[in-house]
Amino acid sequence: MVVDFKTHHPFLSNRNKPMHSILINNIKELVPLSEKEVALVSDAFKPRHLKKKEHLLQKGDPSNHMRFVSDGCMKVYSVDEDGQEHILQFGISGWWINDLYAFLTETPATFFMQAITESTMMQVHRDRLNQLYDEVPMMDRFFRIKTQNGYVALQERTIRSMSVSAELRYSEFINRYRDMEQQIPQYMIASYLGITPEHLSTIRKKMSTQSLS
Amino acid sequence: MVVDFKTHHPFLSNRNKPMHSILINNIKELVPLSEKEVALVSDAFKPRHLKKKEHLLQKGDPSNHMRFVSDGCMKVYSVDEDGQEHILQFGISGWWINDLYAFLTETPATFFMQAITESTMMQVHRDRLNQLYDEVPMMDRFFRIKTQNGYVALQERTIRSMSVSAELRYSEFINRYRDMEQQIPQYMIASYLGITPEHLSTIRKKMSTQSLS
Repeated sequence: MVVDFKTHHPFLSNRNKPMHSILINNIKELVPLSEKEVALVSDAFKPRHLKKKEHLLQKGDPSNHMRFVSDGCMKVYSVDEDGQEHILQFGISGWWINDLYAFLTETPATFFMQAITESTMMQVHRDRLNQLYDEVPMMDRFFRIKTQNGYVALQERTIRSMSVSAELRYSEFINRYRDMEQQIPQYMIASYLGITPEHLSTIRKKMSTQSLS
Repeated sequence: MVVDFKTHHPFLSNRNKPMHSILINNIKELVPLSEKEVALVSDAFKPRHLKKKEHLLQKGDPSNHMRFVSDGCMKVYSVDEDGQEHILQFGISGWWINDLYAFLTETPATFFMQAITESTMMQVHRDRLNQLYDEVPMMDRFFRIKTQNGYVALQERTIRSMSVSAELRYSEFINRYRDMEQQIPQYMIASYLGITPEHLSTIRKKMSTQSLS
């Protein structure tokens, strides 16, 4: 479907338009796109609606799509040998989330990707994306910058998980996921921070006491 | 300096030409470049010759260049609180090496970069590179792919350092740095693998016994 972005009120028209316009606005924050290029990009990305708790990706699946969260809240997690979940990332509206390693190397996914709330993803298949790079050269720049940011985030996360206190990491989490914190259960936040739910509860109590004093 | 790549024997002409042609060939392995674009890229990258043991980057320095090894052998390392060196990466002819985090975030370097042998780097300043992306759009694609590869390598290295034996990592090292292993002292290889020189010596003896039997 090619979306007509010439209208000034794309959100009022039909179901897919807002999903596509959130994606296009996200891209246009970094690179310019002509009207024709907007139409090409919009046509390449397909919406995928997910019910609450529905899985988009399971460990072992091929991960053939680049994925953008238009709406809702997703989580990316791994499961260890004892069946314990370890949350690596949350994804909220405007975020790109993926098992990027599996996508880039074309190897089976090592992570799970699941909807925490009802969500809408915008997805493009690897083959279509590779064509799109030729049709819209600015997409090369967009994903160069996004991949650079992903590289920096991965390195920072590796270093900080070794050196920064759980309390500080929780403060950073609140700032980073400001709009979404209410929708994510506390036990999932604890898993993301690599601490027990009880430890998180203690940190939260301490912080609320500090903010009152 | 703009290099004339129309000649069929660029290696025979002067000192800078082979350095530039190694760089251009490296880029052309991934993306096409017109003659005009080759000239623009060649002009943007400046050679920097290093003597044996000379430092190119020290912790705390700004890291403003994207860097390519044309010739020689470099090492990237950190120094811990006890003054102990930890080698993160070697760079040989045809490799891109950098404190990429410092380069991308414009923060002071956390790593050191030093020549093991006499070496030649080809360097482009961040500001010039940003202009170059507009002049030669294929450079966006080239660095998108290179950054993706860097992301994958970083993730793989993080995971493998936790899960793979020193013996297997040494085998992989030999394969990866096949042409260069003779030039890198054993104690540096041990540092790169995160083991003692004695442990490496034991592994080497065991492997040479196995290959004889």
